[in-house]
Order: sequence, then C-alpha cells, then structure tokens
Amino acid sequence: MIKYSDIDDRLRALAEPTRGAIIERLSRGPATVSELAAPFDMSFAAVVQHLQVLEGCGLIQSEKLGRVRTCRIEPRGFAPIAEWIADRRTLAERRLDRLGVLLAEMDEPSQSKKLKSKGKKK
Amino acid sequence: MIKYSDIDDRLRALAEPTRGAIIERLSRGPATVSELAAPFDMSFAAVVQHLQVLEGCGLIQSEKLGRVRTCRIEPRGFAPIAEWIADRRTLAERRLDRLGVLLAEMDEPSQSKKLKSKGKKK
Repeated sequence: MIKYSDIDDRLRALAEPTRGAIIERLSRGPATVSELAAPFDMSFAAVVQHLQVLEGCGLIQSEKLGRVRTCRIEPRGFAPIAEWIADRRTLAERRLDRLGVLLAEMDEPSQSKKLKSKGKKK
Repeated sequence: MIKYSDIDDRLRALAEPTRGAIIERLSRGPATVSELAAPFDMSFAAVVQHLQVLEGCGLIQSEKLGRVRTCRIEPRGFAPIAEWIADRRTLAERRLDRLGVLLAEMDEPSQSKKLKSKGKKK
C-alpha cells in the first residue's frame, strides 16, 4: 500500500496554482518552455523553477532538441497519488459498508436473537 | 471535467504532513480529536486547526457527542481529486496512444505512400 511519504512531494508540487495550471496545459499535449511561460505574469526563470519541481518529482518529463526544451506529462508519476487516494476512500468506504451490514443484521430478527433481548423495538 | 480550481484547496490541505498523517489515521477508522492529537508534538489547538482545514474542504466530517468530537473520512471529498488526476493521466496517455497509432501507420507501407516519397529510409 502506498504511504503518504511516497507522495508528499508530488502533492506539494501540485498544490501550487502555477504548477497546477502547467499540468492542466500539458495534459492537452506537449509544450515548449516558452509556450508554458507565455500565459504567466512571472519571469522565465520562475517558470523554469516550477518545471524543475514538477520534473524532479516525476510528474513531467522534458527533452531538449537544439535550443528548445519540450515538456510533457509523465502519466506514471500520477499513479501513486491516484493509488493513495483510492486507498483512503476504499478503506473508509469498506468500514461504512461493514457498519451497514452490522446494522442490517441487528435489524433482521432471524439473525439477531441474541442482540434483541426484549423484542420488537424498531 | 473537473478543473484545478475545484480541487486546489483539497490539494493544499493534503500537501501538509500533519494533515496527511491525520487522513492516513482516519482511513483506518473514526477517531476522537484527542486520539488524533496524541501522536503529534504540537498543541491541541494546532491539531484542531488542521482538522478544521480538512473539514472545511470536505475531506473529513466530525460530530460532537457530549464533550467528545469524533472525526471520520468523508470519502466523497476525495472523488474530485481522483477525477482530476485520472483526467490528467488519461488525456496524456490518449495522446501517447494516438502518437503510437500514427507512427505505426507511417511504418506500414500500404497506408503511408504519401508520406514516403523517397522510398526505404528506416
């Protein structure tokens, strides 16, 4: 099972609006660093730093051809986050399901004689 | 499709180690505020603040019975994050698939005569 410590750097990387916008842009297709920087009111160097954070934790990859660096999403980098979130939901939902089964059994006279010592309270 | 602005508060909430640990604890079952605070070397008030952040963005819910407040995971709160991440992966992977199909077609002589104007370069 995936642990929080396996994904904390990726969550921190995604929990910043500029980097979130970059990921949304890249999920529509690869883009050069200049294309990625264009919509933002910040220095080119600042955008490069954000890209380095995203690449450092495996959420994007980049390739330099001549003088142009092109970035793309690394889908595999998202897998551990998806798994951690799925685990959190599943564990919590399973507990709710078990509680539901228990309540249903308590409500079912044939299966719960021991629990219902004094008859027909609904 | 889920937008980043729908989940940015939840990502920020999860991107903090104490809150991540609280979520991991709660996914194993409900707990009182005192139980949640016990493992942390911080004030009770600080833990309560973290819980308020998590509850404020719908990742947990809490209920007060007498003087005891019990917290539990709200699985539905995780759904939009899971969906956003799934969208990012799917869009990127679909592009990679389309690229694969295109490359396969280019490599298939019968379908790509127009692209191969000068013969057998591999």
